[in-house]
Amino acid sequence: MKNISILGSTGSIGTQTLEVISQFPQKFRVVGLAAGNNVDLAAEQVIKYKPTVVSIKSESNAKALESKIRNTKTQIVYGEKGAEEVASIPAAGLVVSSMVGASGLKPTIAAIKAGKDIALANKETLVMAGQLITEEARKNDVKIIPVDSEHSAIYQAIKTSDKKYVRRIILTASGGPFLNTPAEKIKDISVSDALNHPTWKMGNKITIDSATLMNKCFEIIEARWLFDMGCDMISVWIHPQSIIHSMVEFVDGSIISQMGLPDMKIPISYSLNYPERLDLNIGSAEPGAFSNLEFGEVDTGKFPSINYAFSALKEGGTLPAVMNAANEVAVTEFLEGNIGFTKILETIKNVMDLHDNSLEYNYNNIISSDLWARNKAQEILRN
Amino acid sequence: MKNISILGSTGSIGTQTLEVISQFPQKFRVVGLAAGNNVDLAAEQVIKYKPTVVSIKSESNAKALESKIRNTKTQIVYGEKGAEEVASIPAAGLVVSSMVGASGLKPTIAAIKAGKDIALANKETLVMAGQLITEEARKNDVKIIPVDSEHSAIYQAIKTSDKKYVRRIILTASGGPFLNTPAEKIKDISVSDALNHPTWKMGNKITIDSATLMNKCFEIIEARWLFDMGCDMISVWIHPQSIIHSMVEFVDGSIISQMGLPDMKIPISYSLNYPERLDLNIGSAEPGAFSNLEFGEVDTGKFPSINYAFSALKEGGTLPAVMNAANEVAVTEFLEGNIGFTKILETIKNVMDLHDNSLEYNYNNIISSDLWARNKAQEILRN
Repeated sequence: MKNISILGSTGSIGTQTLEVISQFPQKFRVVGLAAGNNVDLAAEQVIKYKPTVVSIKSESNAKALESKIRNTKTQIVYGEKGAEEVASIPAAGLVVSSMVGASGLKPTIAAIKAGKDIALANKETLVMAGQLITEEARKNDVKIIPVDSEHSAIYQAIKTSDKKYVRRIILTASGGPFLNTPAEKIKDISVSDALNHPTWKMGNKITIDSATLMNKCFEIIEARWLFDMGCDMISVWIHPQSIIHSMVEFVDGSIISQMGLPDMKIPISYSLNYPERLDLNIGSAEPGAFSNLEFGEVDTGKFPSINYAFSALKEGGTLPAVMNAANEVAVTEFLEGNIGFTKILETIKNVMDLHDNSLEYNYNNIISSDLWARNKAQEILRN
Repeated sequence: MKNISILGSTGSIGTQTLEVISQFPQKFRVVGLAAGNNVDLAAEQVIKYKPTVVSIKSESNAKALESKIRNTKTQIVYGEKGAEEVASIPAAGLVVSSMVGASGLKPTIAAIKAGKDIALANKETLVMAGQLITEEARKNDVKIIPVDSEHSAIYQAIKTSDKKYVRRIILTASGGPFLNTPAEKIKDISVSDALNHPTWKMGNKITIDSATLMNKCFEIIEARWLFDMGCDMISVWIHPQSIIHSMVEFVDGSIISQMGLPDMKIPISYSLNYPERLDLNIGSAEPGAFSNLEFGEVDTGKFPSINYAFSALKEGGTLPAVMNAANEVAVTEFLEGNIGFTKILETIKNVMDLHDNSLEYNYNNIISSDLWARNKAQEILRN
């Protein structure tokens, strides 16, 4: 029996994780849940999974939740401290880190420091603090198992040989809904256009990040840390069908890939039960479902975001955190209808250009750079 | 330094193996070569690689060879016994079994009995005597590493998880040059049409076997033995581009595949240096080279051969050897222009139907069934 805490239990990855867990009640037990503002769903989850502790975003949410789960033994906590408590609950062996955005960083660090293995879905953890996180993970002998379909693919494929034979990893990118949109039409993209992802069903923030390819930028940086690869060993290929989830190219020219129909339950279950696999009752693949797989280079003229990621990685320090923070602000503004689609990347570029990169790399500098970038992005967008 | 003997050194796999070896003189040394009738090439190889022993097909060939390599220290042997001597030469650590046809079986058994690891390209070894070979390999603690691109792909991909999580293996098949030829035109196929394979450059026999899909039949049977899989765990998918060399589907729906441009040096080098990889100086893949990958079911109406393989596997015993022998006779007759293309599969089917399957499974029965099938095929084709 594996005891699991889930950070971000009411989000897209959180709910799918609970679905996988429900399929294997003899294998997994939920001991902690950390939810956001969705009190009703959090209450349902507490009643169904009976965790020891549940955390919710605010004190007022905690009160509302209390009235809904009066008959359970679950302890209620809240806020940042609450999420950290769920992350480091003694009984947990594995923590699923699936909160959205920068707020996922601190509880993930708490989980690592408490010696928990991490099933990592929160991209910002490695994007903002990759070096710090990997050092902490090493120090605490903690495994970080990716939940992202791309990194899960690489995590699987890279096992076929000793790492010294890897020539590069190739992240595949669907290209998002605007892959074939002419460059001059990009500025007219509406929120509902951008939320209409062609191959994956995901939360709103990540769907917008897919449309700008910022999601792939985060994945480049994550890959750098997860697999200890230099920038020159990471490539991105457009692959609109999202069937091949990513690949590893070895020095002999052999490429190992992981593929399958897009279904997040596959990488989620792999991260929960690693290194064992779970029979998810997903039918066998039909060859027809894999037809006309295409691959191409990224058009960085239309999607300059990919260049930002490689610059951020090359420069290092707090620049990746700044890129992430500026994106988070801009995406929120876009989703609220306050700015146009092209403003997202423009803002990120402007904020990155203005950033005075910190030479001292530590948690406080990451957080203050994150804050600086949020303020700067808002300032730029107000003007 | 790894000492290598090559059975079938003047054939397509043999010469490519020597090219790989030439790239890594500090890693490999050729200690034995067994050639067929190509005395000139065998002489060149002896002069270049200085093996301890060379074997050639006949006594008269041996005399001709002797006059060409007078200044070397290489010992000349010949015939079946000669090939067995090369296979079991004490200095050899690995034997590349790449003779064409049934004649590869006996020397391969000799190599296994002498405790040599096998890089297996000769399909007939496992097709005729899979059970016997795998038992001998186990007994002598010998690794059988496939050279076939399909089995090499599976050999690599299957390493990502414990074998108990494999749901099935999926062999890809280019479909050969007649994939899109209408059924009614198949009978008009000429030898030169059939030798014109769309994606792989190979020897004549295997190119015809690709055109009839008999090659895939052999691969099905090989896979059964190499990976210890039941018939129901082996599928074949048509994949005309030959980019994905084969796949392993796991119980969670995850599919691991090995892919790359068709180049036999990749699987050859993998088998020579397993589990290490060699930097073959093959450039990185371009995404454009992998475009429009298609997958489909086999049309067993047009290519009933695939059904023969599964019947042979299900029935077991000496039936796979009979299937192979009938094919070998029919392909020779086709290549010599004596029979039409459709006669190949007809003959195999007839001979298989007439075979009284031997319940006792041993080397002598395999060989006598092979002989019986050759005679029967010739008898049928004469009428």
